[in-house]
Amino acid sequence: MIGIALLGAGRIGTVHAGNIAASPRARLAAVVDADPEVARRLAERHGAPAMTLEDALAEPSIACVLVTSPTETHAALVEAAARAGKAIFCEKPVDLARERVARCLATAAEAGVPLLVGFNRRYDPHFAALKQAIDAGRIGRVELVAITSRDPAPPPLAYLKGSGGLFRDMTIHDFDMARWLLPEEPAEVFAAASVLVGPEIGAIGDVDTALVTLRTRSGALCQISNSRRAVYGYDQRIEAFGEKGMLQVGNVARTTVVHADADGVVGETPLPFFLERYAEAYRLELEHFLDVVEGRAAPRTTGADGLKALVLADAAHESARTGRSVAV
Amino acid sequence: MIGIALLGAGRIGTVHAGNIAASPRARLAAVVDADPEVARRLAERHGAPAMTLEDALAEPSIACVLVTSPTETHAALVEAAARAGKAIFCEKPVDLARERVARCLATAAEAGVPLLVGFNRRYDPHFAALKQAIDAGRIGRVELVAITSRDPAPPPLAYLKGSGGLFRDMTIHDFDMARWLLPEEPAEVFAAASVLVGPEIGAIGDVDTALVTLRTRSGALCQISNSRRAVYGYDQRIEAFGEKGMLQVGNVARTTVVHADADGVVGETPLPFFLERYAEAYRLELEHFLDVVEGRAAPRTTGADGLKALVLADAAHESARTGRSVAV
Amino acid sequence: MIGIALLGAGRIGTVHAGNIAASPRARLAAVVDADPEVARRLAERHGAPAMTLEDALAEPSIACVLVTSPTETHAALVEAAARAGKAIFCEKPVDLARERVARCLATAAEAGVPLLVGFNRRYDPHFAALKQAIDAGRIGRVELVAITSRDPAPPPLAYLKGSGGLFRDMTIHDFDMARWLLPEEPAEVFAAASVLVGPEIGAIGDVDTALVTLRTRSGALCQISNSRRAVYGYDQRIEAFGEKGMLQVGNVARTTVVHADADGVVGETPLPFFLERYAEAYRLELEHFLDVVEGRAAPRTTGADGLKALVLADAAHESARTGRSVAV
Amino acid sequence: MIGIALLGAGRIGTVHAGNIAASPRARLAAVVDADPEVARRLAERHGAPAMTLEDALAEPSIACVLVTSPTETHAALVEAAARAGKAIFCEKPVDLARERVARCLATAAEAGVPLLVGFNRRYDPHFAALKQAIDAGRIGRVELVAITSRDPAPPPLAYLKGSGGLFRDMTIHDFDMARWLLPEEPAEVFAAASVLVGPEIGAIGDVDTALVTLRTRSGALCQISNSRRAVYGYDQRIEAFGEKGMLQVGNVARTTVVHADADGVVGETPLPFFLERYAEAYRLELEHFLDVVEGRAAPRTTGADGLKALVLADAAHESARTGRSVAV
Repeated sequence: MIGIALLGAGRIGTVHAGNIAASPRARLAAVVDADPEVARRLAERHGAPAMTLEDALAEPSIACVLVTSPTETHAALVEAAARAGKAIFCEKPVDLARERVARCLATAAEAGVPLLVGFNRRYDPHFAALKQAIDAGRIGRVELVAITSRDPAPPPLAYLKGSGGLFRDMTIHDFDMARWLLPEEPAEVFAAASVLVGPEIGAIGDVDTALVTLRTRSGALCQISNSRRAVYGYDQRIEAFGEKGMLQVGNVARTTVVHADADGVVGETPLPFFLERYAEAYRLELEHFLDVVEGRAAPRTTGADGLKALVLADAAHESARTGRSVAV
Repeated sequence: MIGIALLGAGRIGTVHAGNIAASPRARLAAVVDADPEVARRLAERHGAPAMTLEDALAEPSIACVLVTSPTETHAALVEAAARAGKAIFCEKPVDLARERVARCLATAAEAGVPLLVGFNRRYDPHFAALKQAIDAGRIGRVELVAITSRDPAPPPLAYLKGSGGLFRDMTIHDFDMARWLLPEEPAEVFAAASVLVGPEIGAIGDVDTALVTLRTRSGALCQISNSRRAVYGYDQRIEAFGEKGMLQVGNVARTTVVHADADGVVGETPLPFFLERYAEAYRLELEHFLDVVEGRAAPRTTGADGLKALVLADAAHESARTGRSVAV
Repeated sequence: MIGIALLGAGRIGTVHAGNIAASPRARLAAVVDADPEVARRLAERHGAPAMTLEDALAEPSIACVLVTSPTETHAALVEAAARAGKAIFCEKPVDLARERVARCLATAAEAGVPLLVGFNRRYDPHFAALKQAIDAGRIGRVELVAITSRDPAPPPLAYLKGSGGLFRDMTIHDFDMARWLLPEEPAEVFAAASVLVGPEIGAIGDVDTALVTLRTRSGALCQISNSRRAVYGYDQRIEAFGEKGMLQVGNVARTTVVHADADGVVGETPLPFFLERYAEAYRLELEHFLDVVEGRAAPRTTGADGLKALVLADAAHESARTGRSVAV
Repeated sequence: MIGIALLGAGRIGTVHAGNIAASPRARLAAVVDADPEVARRLAERHGAPAMTLEDALAEPSIACVLVTSPTETHAALVEAAARAGKAIFCEKPVDLARERVARCLATAAEAGVPLLVGFNRRYDPHFAALKQAIDAGRIGRVELVAITSRDPAPPPLAYLKGSGGLFRDMTIHDFDMARWLLPEEPAEVFAAASVLVGPEIGAIGDVDTALVTLRTRSGALCQISNSRRAVYGYDQRIEAFGEKGMLQVGNVARTTVVHADADGVVGETPLPFFLERYAEAYRLELEHFLDVVEGRAAPRTTGADGLKALVLADAAHESARTGRSVAV
């Protein structure tokens, strides 16, 4: 049983804690949180100890950490864990500043510990099946990828203020999907963005709706459509077009129930948000991380992936500001 | 943690063992099987002890049993467990003979132990949502229920020989769905059956394809469509029609991936068979049983439900033989 | 241009008149109706003459008739037209009494005129594609056919009184579909019927909801599900199951528009009723009849088809009354 | 009956001729074509006379013309018809040069004749229902429109050479859709384009794959996705997102037939190309034009619409060249 220290006992930490408890291969060996009471409550639920960071990193039976704390604390935790020789899973992003991310990656590399970044969507069975079909040549060379990614509702303003803006906080996942599915790295980024959902979002200098266009050197294209609001649920769809056909991943509903009456034929809305939509992805992501910790696999989503997605996000930010496509 | 003895370490027992291991409320306290080696292997996988039936039933820390052995052993195990004061979960059917089932029920009642019969489909989130919508009045009074239930391929002939025939082995689940969804108990049964899938099935006196019609006293109708073969996967659909509309539960696929090329727009086949299709149902069924064991719920699928479904199966059997509807 | 006399200027006659007008091969040469004013109005709309039956049948430039009058007048009109040597299209049924139908068929045969019965569904592109796929062997030998056929709302009681009952009036179309799609003629019929939609329907001795089971000699099965009410629209679906797969024809909506909000993902209801759902079928049916008149095709839906469907309807009627399957 | 002169007897002219023949309100009064033999053949099929342009325009019983000839002849025909006082339907575009279009519009205005430009998609029942739902406030203010528009295969190179390029030839329809569905006129255009389908297309200076982003002054966004190749059929979809929900128009298939076997659940491909997909739109467009000719309606798709779409196309062309968004 692999001993895991959970660094951050908030919403996403709670998800991981549940998955650790359900995995026959892992053991929740420590819960750490800036608020000891929060740590204690989550730890207790799983019969695990709450600890200070120092104690957790000093504990030899703990092989790895999950960094699930607020974004601004990620980098320091990654570096501390790396120096303590623990394998690291870090929720995206490692940091909002590219130089800081690069330094974290270097620290982990020097320490010789694996660093896996939580681009959860790659582990989703639906998107994984899409990727597999592409790799199997089902549509030939990919020419165009279309990503629709809309949150049900904006997060609290307090969160948005520290989020780094739409492109770094939300589109970052779509950039990772684009990089994963396109036949080569994007070379140009264009973004158009608006404030349509909430003027208060505009007031803090952020945007809430955006269209991003990516182009690779050989001309493959990708479009990303983002909004902070989709009243019908968490809208997460991808289409890939190639010379031999098209692949689509649609939204996922809780059940297949359909109700028909004079007003229409009504199916369920998409699952409400990421915790529900990506529940299985989080589980499979953890299993993959355990494979990494056991030395049986190399990280599928690396710190370098995090860095490259961030580069695209920064380029989109600049493009939205200047109205020009930005080379990356 | 509720201590559970698993009586039967075959395919379905293995599923339950996994769910017990993953439940924070339960503990696999004993694995019993006619083949001690089979018991040992499954027990080991979950760090649980293999035991004899006697030892398991004598163990005070074991509060309940799951009867997951071959059908012909169910009744004796149910009675032994009842006499030992254990709460009982029994995979359907308790027995193929109605009198024997009735005696088991009486024994459990006398012993004051709850007896839950494994009509897994009632716990499936899709069918549960259908039922909930009916109960909420979404389609008004239910007038007609249509159940499509087709296995991917016939079971081994050896299994079929002891199965009690299509109606008792396979349609039994559909009879339970019909009883659950209709506004009142069926009063008449008509069945037409054929041997279309395998002559060897006909050779042992069984059928492999059937249409059953049920009618309640007030005239509500139900049709059940069964086949032992569906090359496109496990076909499990239900429609309910009422004065205010229709409700449908469709098949469930592994992912939403669609592939389009010149030959068509292709979605995934339904999940292959019951272990995949009803994985979540088995999990929820166990959770419900744990509620029953803890005294926090009455069994939602009782021995009496098992008996009533068997009555319908026997009536269908007779009707298919005589060409007349049979009153029940 | 083929001169056509339309015998009956009601709802369905109006549909045919429009199709004649739009066809480059046909000319509406006469409109006949028991009510001369009704005939005159429809005739005028298409710049055609209203006539008496005698004049129309005596007119040499008229090659054929469409019998689209009320059911009870069909047989006499068919016989008159046959004796006048006109090719005949007759809306189903030729008559509610089998002997009368047989006599009509004999009369037409003696006169050497083709008689095409209006089983419109065979001309529907959706069902025709289903049939074509079956004939192409896409699902191997057909083992089971499931027909869902539900009207949006009951017709006026006055109509029902002369309709011959649900099986002869409504199920008759489904019997024709069953005969068309099954690998051989049905040999047994079982029906269960209820009054669930309107007590006034029961009061005149009719039923409004029914399940019919058909079985062929070799064991192929068919189920038909009928209701006089479907508040969500005209429900017309067929599924065919064979050893190699399944084929489905779903409902047809006016557009593909889907609306999603917090209450669900809503598609359009099925087209409201037969005039809309089978508009294209009526058009193609007429074109086929013109081929027949020109001697370039034999009738695809014959008087014999009408008679055989009626035999099944009578058997269903008897079965619903007796609770026994009826051999045909 | 409105007398119509058809100016151009090619593929699209043939479609219009058929619709004229089927309309009870219209009469094909003349067919004109640069190739008199082509004109004669189409005219003959509908019992209409072939004529020279001069004769057709001089004929007082001809109230209007349909300009369905090759693009480069449109402007001259529009002007000639305007001077002859005929109401004008002109297939898009009136001309590839904006000044020329402006002059045509002026000529028609001076002559006091209505000029309707054939943006056929606005008449499509599916898109019209989408528009109607937007106008009815079903999704609140429209924030984002996503248009997928992919041709099955590139046209002949000879056609492409005179087409004005992807944006003027193909995207022009999508620009019209965008203008129609957005809450206000686009103010900025960004386009990224590639040659992925055929190097010969690149060799003549054109592109075959493109992503266009539009932005209105208040920030509403639109993305258009184009390709000259979609092996699975003509891909014509639109999604509109607003504060209260989403609306989607999906592809249209010939039938609802679904085939399921071990390889998947297969529906039909989208209708092959515009003649099939927009058959009903062409019919309704003609009916609308007849209303215009009769003075009962103002043109719904005007010369000004054609001009505005062309402005967007030119802006997209420039943006794709410069990598900058272009203000319009």
